[in-house]
Amino acid sequence: MSEPREDDLRAEAEALDARDELRAKRKEFVLDDTVYLDGNSLGALPAHVADRVADVITRQWGELRIRSWDESGWWTAPERIGDRIAPLVGAAPGQLVVGDSTSVNVFKALVAAVRIARGAGGDGRDEIVVDATTFPTDGYIAESAARLTGCRLVQAAPADVPGVLGERTAAVLLNHADYRTGRLHDLPGLTAAVHAVGALAVWDLCHTAGALPVGLDEHGVDLAVGCTYKYLNGGPGSPAYLYVRAQLQDRFDSPLPGWNSHAEPFGMRPEFEAAAGALRGRVGTPDILSTLALEAALDVWDGVSVDEVRAKSLALTDFFLRCVGAYVPQGRVRSLTPAAHSERGSQVALRCEGAGDVMRRLIERGVVGDFRAPDVLRFGFTPLYVSFGDAERAARVLAETLG
Amino acid sequence: MSEPREDDLRAEAEALDARDELRAKRKEFVLDDTVYLDGNSLGALPAHVADRVADVITRQWGELRIRSWDESGWWTAPERIGDRIAPLVGAAPGQLVVGDSTSVNVFKALVAAVRIARGAGGDGRDEIVVDATTFPTDGYIAESAARLTGCRLVQAAPADVPGVLGERTAAVLLNHADYRTGRLHDLPGLTAAVHAVGALAVWDLCHTAGALPVGLDEHGVDLAVGCTYKYLNGGPGSPAYLYVRAQLQDRFDSPLPGWNSHAEPFGMRPEFEAAAGALRGRVGTPDILSTLALEAALDVWDGVSVDEVRAKSLALTDFFLRCVGAYVPQGRVRSLTPAAHSERGSQVALRCEGAGDVMRRLIERGVVGDFRAPDVLRFGFTPLYVSFGDAERAARVLAETLG
Repeated sequence: MSEPREDDLRAEAEALDARDELRAKRKEFVLDDTVYLDGNSLGALPAHVADRVADVITRQWGELRIRSWDESGWWTAPERIGDRIAPLVGAAPGQLVVGDSTSVNVFKALVAAVRIARGAGGDGRDEIVVDATTFPTDGYIAESAARLTGCRLVQAAPADVPGVLGERTAAVLLNHADYRTGRLHDLPGLTAAVHAVGALAVWDLCHTAGALPVGLDEHGVDLAVGCTYKYLNGGPGSPAYLYVRAQLQDRFDSPLPGWNSHAEPFGMRPEFEAAAGALRGRVGTPDILSTLALEAALDVWDGVSVDEVRAKSLALTDFFLRCVGAYVPQGRVRSLTPAAHSERGSQVALRCEGAGDVMRRLIERGVVGDFRAPDVLRFGFTPLYVSFGDAERAARVLAETLG
Repeated sequence: MSEPREDDLRAEAEALDARDELRAKRKEFVLDDTVYLDGNSLGALPAHVADRVADVITRQWGELRIRSWDESGWWTAPERIGDRIAPLVGAAPGQLVVGDSTSVNVFKALVAAVRIARGAGGDGRDEIVVDATTFPTDGYIAESAARLTGCRLVQAAPADVPGVLGERTAAVLLNHADYRTGRLHDLPGLTAAVHAVGALAVWDLCHTAGALPVGLDEHGVDLAVGCTYKYLNGGPGSPAYLYVRAQLQDRFDSPLPGWNSHAEPFGMRPEFEAAAGALRGRVGTPDILSTLALEAALDVWDGVSVDEVRAKSLALTDFFLRCVGAYVPQGRVRSLTPAAHSERGSQVALRCEGAGDVMRRLIERGVVGDFRAPDVLRFGFTPLYVSFGDAERAARVLAETLG
């Protein structure tokens, strides 16, 4: 027999779902009866992607073959798809290119940022500051960029970053949201603090793009990178993107100047001359299958505003936390995700004893989140396809699993 | 009415095709009635790839979603597919990983080579030598690697390389075959010359892997890179590979140490600790769709020996050159491709006045090669699917186009 509280929350979930303006989007994805709360790791499959990729393989590659570089728009895909992502991160066209992995793009962005900072009368700048709580790859790559540019690497938690900035700071690499706790960092404030000392701000948007407004142009971000396989649903390992603010593009001096970033790529000239604009961020031949799968996946954003997505995301995580509070016995989990909306991304992280085993049992019962060592349960809420009913069920199954 | 010579060459083509041991392989590709001689740019589609990728999208991504990183073998794909390519380039298992573009892999290889050379008591080594006739991206990336490691870039044609080597040489980047002329360079001899001065040899195999024996292990090559979309038929922009000789792997110090190259990638540790073996060449999350399309494409190599492929390749280019000699009016084209087998890759390059226009007309008439500015017609011969009949027809249509 159900507790009255459960009836109430189920009824509330139904009411919230009934008036959810994004509700119809769910049908555009391939979903089953599991509650999929791992879209912050790998977004679900938009249903039309399979047919589009089949056409890329069978007709574009199989029949047109080499002609597709022109006729099927393969060659211009990196900048064309960059412009599709641009409005989702608050960027005007012409500032994003898609390609390579996030790690490779972090490298391009950081080395280029150090060069720009030094070029702007900042020759004495020899420090790269990196978010100490970052997803580790950013730290590893930052260390490599520092080593190759003769910089010292300074690690600081985002809240402590303003205190370590100074006239030696060349570039600062920050995560917009913490991959473990889901904490959202203050992009406008930290960018302003970095600019105040004459350094460049590089943001990693992996955990926010497609989940909440980023406002790259509005907040004067210098460079940004992000993956496309989480909230952008581009598919496993789909290409990342690089944003270079328009005003900096002339000074963007890539450490990976491949032929795709040449002003005249088919001129086959021995001397490198960088292309104008965002194309400078390209390197080698783009991996067309993954790139065009991403392009197809982005169709689900047609007619969707990021503000709408953000509103639903906050409503979902609020509701999930309320359900957890109602169902899960006191003291069994503790939320690491900030209560304040201004500090919350689109995931909920719960500290829990035996989290690895708990997540395994949750998955067996059809609630898919993930586990981050040593003791964190992560639940990602993708507003395009997660319902309030999903949130209620996840909390209920979690309570039963712990009960 | 046909010239007698044409009848003879057509009959010879038929006879050669009839006894071609690779003949059955042609059926494994999607081909139409065009003569496709651009496989040195984009290999034709192996027929079974579409179904395999459809399964990756629909079942692995769509249904298993995040579980596929383990259950569908996504995570280990880079090294697993590296081991599939290894025998094609004469490498024992455990020395290749697939991922990123050729340009990015050239960067990894060169910076790592400089570091190894310096570590081996060669601190004074400050020169990177690069093939002056190389595909331009290699030169651009070599220049970037030189700039970031404090080296001077020395350009030399392959034949002149031995003359510029010395105790200052750290690393040498060479193309196994020239992308314009199809000239094959002396990999064993040049590698030995590089080693004689204590430097490291890095080879770019884009234009030879899958067309002829490379012998990486046999000839003691240190590092090598190559694309997979030419003679390996991996699809447009399919991931490149990096070879690191087993004996050097402990000293391979990547400039792109992403989380995929960490000894414990899911440990999420702030300190970087490189994985053992070829995995050190990995960087970020692999683009799974392109990577698994490549894996499927490699199935066409089952039961094929590279020696067999090489024998057919030489027979094809010999026969094509004979047909060109017989059909094309004297003086209209001149072969840039060496006559000596030991100096020939798997393409024929013909210098021709108005080459751009000639190639356009050839393509209209169903003979697909490509044009390289200012005056080169390139014809690539992929032994797995090009027939002697194709070679005869291509020469005949060329003669008619010029006639």
